Amino acid sequence: MGRKRAVLEYLESLPLVDHHCHGTFEADVDRAAFEAALTEAEAGGPPGVSMFDSQIGFALRRWCPPVLDLDAHAGPDDYVERRADLGAAEVNRRFLAASGLRALCVDTGHAPERILGPAALGELAGADAHEVLRLETVAEQVAAEGVDASGFAAEVRSRIEARAPSVVAAKSIAAYRAGLEMPGHRPSDAEVAAAAGRLMRHLEPRVREEPLHRFLVWCAVDAGLPVQFHVGYGDLDADLRRGDPLLLIELLRAMNDAGVPAMLLHNYPFHRNAGYLAQVLPNVYVDAGLAMNNLGHRAHVLLCELLELAPFGKVLYSSDAYGLAELYYLGALLFRRALAGQLAGGVDDGAWTSGDARRVAEMITRGNAERVYGI
Amino acid sequence: MGRKRAVLEYLESLPLVDHHCHGTFEADVDRAAFEAALTEAEAGGPPGVSMFDSQIGFALRRWCPPVLDLDAHAGPDDYVERRADLGAAEVNRRFLAASGLRALCVDTGHAPERILGPAALGELAGADAHEVLRLETVAEQVAAEGVDASGFAAEVRSRIEARAPSVVAAKSIAAYRAGLEMPGHRPSDAEVAAAAGRLMRHLEPRVREEPLHRFLVWCAVDAGLPVQFHVGYGDLDADLRRGDPLLLIELLRAMNDAGVPAMLLHNYPFHRNAGYLAQVLPNVYVDAGLAMNNLGHRAHVLLCELLELAPFGKVLYSSDAYGLAELYYLGALLFRRALAGQLAGGVDDGAWTSGDARRVAEMITRGNAERVYGI
Amino acid sequence: MGRKRAVLEYLESLPLVDHHCHGTFEADVDRAAFEAALTEAEAGGPPGVSMFDSQIGFALRRWCPPVLDLDAHAGPDDYVERRADLGAAEVNRRFLAASGLRALCVDTGHAPERILGPAALGELAGADAHEVLRLETVAEQVAAEGVDASGFAAEVRSRIEARAPSVVAAKSIAAYRAGLEMPGHRPSDAEVAAAAGRLMRHLEPRVREEPLHRFLVWCAVDAGLPVQFHVGYGDLDADLRRGDPLLLIELLRAMNDAGVPAMLLHNYPFHRNAGYLAQVLPNVYVDAGLAMNNLGHRAHVLLCELLELAPFGKVLYSSDAYGLAELYYLGALLFRRALAGQLAGGVDDGAWTSGDARRVAEMITRGNAERVYGI
Repeated sequence: MGRKRAVLEYLESLPLVDHHCHGTFEADVDRAAFEAALTEAEAGGPPGVSMFDSQIGFALRRWCPPVLDLDAHAGPDDYVERRADLGAAEVNRRFLAASGLRALCVDTGHAPERILGPAALGELAGADAHEVLRLETVAEQVAAEGVDASGFAAEVRSRIEARAPSVVAAKSIAAYRAGLEMPGHRPSDAEVAAAAGRLMRHLEPRVREEPLHRFLVWCAVDAGLPVQFHVGYGDLDADLRRGDPLLLIELLRAMNDAGVPAMLLHNYPFHRNAGYLAQVLPNVYVDAGLAMNNLGHRAHVLLCELLELAPFGKVLYSSDAYGLAELYYLGALLFRRALAGQLAGGVDDGAWTSGDARRVAEMITRGNAERVYGI
Repeated sequence: MGRKRAVLEYLESLPLVDHHCHGTFEADVDRAAFEAALTEAEAGGPPGVSMFDSQIGFALRRWCPPVLDLDAHAGPDDYVERRADLGAAEVNRRFLAASGLRALCVDTGHAPERILGPAALGELAGADAHEVLRLETVAEQVAAEGVDASGFAAEVRSRIEARAPSVVAAKSIAAYRAGLEMPGHRPSDAEVAAAAGRLMRHLEPRVREEPLHRFLVWCAVDAGLPVQFHVGYGDLDADLRRGDPLLLIELLRAMNDAGVPAMLLHNYPFHRNAGYLAQVLPNVYVDAGLAMNNLGHRAHVLLCELLELAPFGKVLYSSDAYGLAELYYLGALLFRRALAGQLAGGVDDGAWTSGDARRVAEMITRGNAERVYGI
Repeated sequence: MGRKRAVLEYLESLPLVDHHCHGTFEADVDRAAFEAALTEAEAGGPPGVSMFDSQIGFALRRWCPPVLDLDAHAGPDDYVERRADLGAAEVNRRFLAASGLRALCVDTGHAPERILGPAALGELAGADAHEVLRLETVAEQVAAEGVDASGFAAEVRSRIEARAPSVVAAKSIAAYRAGLEMPGHRPSDAEVAAAAGRLMRHLEPRVREEPLHRFLVWCAVDAGLPVQFHVGYGDLDADLRRGDPLLLIELLRAMNDAGVPAMLLHNYPFHRNAGYLAQVLPNVYVDAGLAMNNLGHRAHVLLCELLELAPFGKVLYSSDAYGLAELYYLGALLFRRALAGQLAGGVDDGAWTSGDARRVAEMITRGNAERVYGI
């Protein structure tokens, strides 16, 4: 245990790049809202079931109360009450500051509630903040503004190009809409125009057709932006039947030919498939964000499984935090502990040296992200 | 190890609700029949391969011989001989009595051999016995009795309604016949009548068409019965290609809108997918029955994986025992040990408190089942 | 740990049957070529990513340098330099001799580089060498020689029959071309002739149509040869979307009716599905070759998962080594350690006796392969 503790202390000294997260709530939340924001369920559970009684709930109660001056394992009501007493601003400040981040890459395309943007997050975290451009949001804004169908593609493309210099990556949520089964080639202009026409008939346009998602990915590729893909685990809309990263193989291959990195986010329960893709395709990178938080005490198992086939130079850290400031902190903490446990375990077994462990820790905590995003 | 032992002792004091099992053989079995009943294979194995040489075989030899006054790890022939000497009635009595059950929910729709029914099982186990109504069996009885196709739906529906007050749940074996890919909406009357017409042309009618399975589920939903679904692992007929619970998502969603619980049974090797569904859909509950027994010494790994995303208020215990009385006992024993190991491990690591562990143990061993079935 | 050491020593004394491997490079390789041969990636990685920084790379650096008189954990450059100094012949000799093999079954159908054949491998290893006949290679040779389409089937069938007495098994690479989704029945003569006609239009014919792969399997079945199937993990061409062994179930069932064994190779990440097939189908055998090497320090987890449902009489050892002599040695070493760890762990827990552990070790290391191949 001494060596594990030493590796953990070393990892705690390493600042993390959280390469995919969202904003945090500006306002206070009550227990029902807190519980609903804790997992991917839409609400806190049916009568008799609390989402606090889950791996993420137990992990939160273990690690977060001390940051708010409570004892570890505080009960849900006490915790939410203390949180309200401190107020959202103070809670956000404490958890972001305690996360030990060097940089955050913030997907700004999803904000149904009032949330803090990249600059405010970076300031609270004492970290560099970068923006990730959600592709579907660009298309939906263009559609809502009422360009005609023939001009849609050019307008979308030009906005993505214009934003490219100020963001570090693009993000595709095809998995939430049409699913990940996409061919590798670009859709034709006619396909895009036809789909755009259908999109613009809606008052609140939402991209849902596969050729439009693919068109957006190619706009990002042409603009030289690494593309982050939602893969696997998410809320009920993230239809897991169509969320296996293997479905994306043709497009990943075409992106590899174009020399553009693809980042597979989350991946659970398909993380072994993602690890395979990271080994056989030079441009593919993987993380286990969102799931690490949700698995709580089991997070180390997920990381170990991800690191079976994925080369250590292809694995990144993300929290996928949204809403609750606890999730940035808990994600970072569980990730550090999981990585430390795995690396120290290998040193204990003589499977690798402590120098190798240190080098891998630097790659995964920040080096890989810095290299691939050029940050 | 002291704490693990204490948690195990506490769990051993908790009576279990076995929310899905079948009847046990009334008659003695020889070694070939015993071996065939041990796993999901149709027979004991090809020349040179014994099903006793498997995780379930080793687990049975570890735990069951002492109940029959033999030493642990007795050889297969000695074990089967001792079993015959005692006679089926005594063997059934000993294993059921030793299982530590508070209640059994017995699927009575599958009885190719002479087996004990719910009342007899409950008496042997000193437990409340409840019945689970197999939906396809109702439809096949109606079809065999020769109602005309136009009257089929009404007759089936009325029989299910009539049985509803005296059973705790319905059971669908769609996975064994048409697979789990079902839309959410009700089939039309015409679809049901056409399929019923085809069904009744057979001397021994077997429901095999997807709309009929779905019709039966909706009959149960309308009768307010929780529906148990066979999912994943089973014998060769349980075609795993069509047994992934994700395929059921539309129907589960529609059942959620109708306010009716769905219980996903077995789930291996798709148990992580099942855990996801239990998190994102309020009406979905899961277990790992059948597989727990078959994994033997690895049962704890399966339970840990199931409990990654599944909220602790959504997980139930079942043995799925059929035929051999050993399977009720072994299922309960392996489950208690697996749960105790996981809960005590978390207490040892400081991941949760022993009070939390006790509360989760009560939920999973009986509380969740009692709440959802109202027993 | 004392008992684990004793079991490991016992296992180290047991010679292994490596029931599926390829030839080893005759010539020296530089670092780039070495790294490319290490994993299933086509090259060593994009800038900044070394394939040595992976589980297999760390495992190789842990275990292989001492065989070349270097310290464990030697750096990649030192290792490759030492390898060149010794020369390929000496390197091959050392690793094969150290692998502890009783027999090798060598797939001779894939040789893009100059590699040693079965006889030379056997001599270096001090082991019996057997040949595995790659079915697609036979068909491609016939096609390249310009037989007419109507005569293709008879000629292929007659060559397979002629080779049958001198080989121990046939090998299908359908997974690499058309995928594993195959019906069980034989393709019609017309289907085979039509596909053969299309095949022969190419200067370098490659079997790619599903009916041709299936035809080849049936030729092997008719010749009484066990058939090895590539399943799951492999390079980018081994499209994992179509590599799940469950897709093969109809053909496996038909082969079972014909009384011919089917060996599912590799299987990762579908190894639990493969274990299920090994339980429910009497003629199905499984291994975890290739993946064991690539998982390195995690190899034991893979073996444990494979051995959940697979009866112990249905599991074989293979390295799937190709090219680097290290892979025969590392595969054998990781396999022995993984099996020893699992078996000794069970003895420590009282889950099975040391006699049972010894018996299972003999089955899996050699007995099952000897029985099923008649060697």
